[in-house]
Amino acid sequence: MNGQLPRTARSDARDNRARILDAARVVFGEEGLGAPVRKVARHAGVGPATLYRHFPTKQELITETFAEQRRACRTAVRDALADSDPWRGFRGLVERICELHADSRGFADAFVAAFPEAMDFTADREQTLRAVGELARRAQESGRLRPDFVVGDLVLMLTAHRGLQDTPHAVRAATSRRFAAYVIEAFRAAPQAAAPTPLPPAVRWPVRRPGARSPQG
Amino acid sequence: MNGQLPRTARSDARDNRARILDAARVVFGEEGLGAPVRKVARHAGVGPATLYRHFPTKQELITETFAEQRRACRTAVRDALADSDPWRGFRGLVERICELHADSRGFADAFVAAFPEAMDFTADREQTLRAVGELARRAQESGRLRPDFVVGDLVLMLTAHRGLQDTPHAVRAATSRRFAAYVIEAFRAAPQAAAPTPLPPAVRWPVRRPGARSPQG
Repeated sequence: MNGQLPRTARSDARDNRARILDAARVVFGEEGLGAPVRKVARHAGVGPATLYRHFPTKQELITETFAEQRRACRTAVRDALADSDPWRGFRGLVERICELHADSRGFADAFVAAFPEAMDFTADREQTLRAVGELARRAQESGRLRPDFVVGDLVLMLTAHRGLQDTPHAVRAATSRRFAAYVIEAFRAAPQAAAPTPLPPAVRWPVRRPGARSPQG
Repeated sequence: MNGQLPRTARSDARDNRARILDAARVVFGEEGLGAPVRKVARHAGVGPATLYRHFPTKQELITETFAEQRRACRTAVRDALADSDPWRGFRGLVERICELHADSRGFADAFVAAFPEAMDFTADREQTLRAVGELARRAQESGRLRPDFVVGDLVLMLTAHRGLQDTPHAVRAATSRRFAAYVIEAFRAAPQAAAPTPLPPAVRWPVRRPGARSPQG
């Protein structure tokens, strides 16, 4: 055997790993990243020792759990940047991010809040926000995005979007879509005929310490 | 004495009551209505027995704690209805409600979520939403509010607004003001020259059972 597991033990391990990731998607998806790892183990029907053998830290578990969402987000960013119409690209990206966040409270947590276990998401978030900044610049040049929009306004709206996690599960996706459509309307530049309404000043949030937890955590 | 408390005992009781209400405003204001009553007692520096003597139920404590906010909300509704410009009245009411909610997570909970202890707020909420409906009808007639706005959209936005409670305390009020301004921009009717952008359908949320708690609770 040369240190390899027998075939059945290997396939058991594979099954357990898949079961743990499915359970993590459900538990973190509904309750956010604050949910305890032992709840994921219970939901997967495995012991804590088995979970820790596959994922020695919560951070590793979270990183693997949301691998698919992170890929989807990167694809959305790439598609948006490649769109020949920057306002259409911007709109599409806002819609797609809201959709991914509505689908999983945990993924929204990882993007918006400062959970130490979601450190691996920092680079993704910064890449996404850089793309939003680039799209916004182009969409403002084309006159479709309001000139006083700043990237922090999208973070503000995604933070607000997390409040919608309290809506009943059956209507959450539809609620999120209506919210996203309103957000896009709010960001749209007034037509040249109409006088733009000034917004109150944009807010620069103080940077959180990396170890800080959100009050939801 | 004829059953009356001596003067000092009466003034002690008055002090305790005021201290409890101050503590409740802080604790429920920061943590929402889910915060335990014993935490309010601890914050006020009184024993649980003293708190229960003044407020036998959490419901009575909550009702008294937010008496001022409820008055402020009723005044805002009255002012908005009395405004000769319905769009200005509507805008002012949205701004004022956001301000009151940003100021206290507990008051936002009482308005938006189904906490059984906030039953006394049901009538207030319904009165406010009736006023919003009346203002919306008039503002739509005047052509300033988009024709596809429904009252549920304001509830949607106030539910989202609760997500902003996660922003650092120092910038919460400013964040809430920028959010409110964007919401008003989103609700504003497109000028006649511009083609209106259709929204996805409005969502009718299933009615919650009166005893149901929000997942935040």
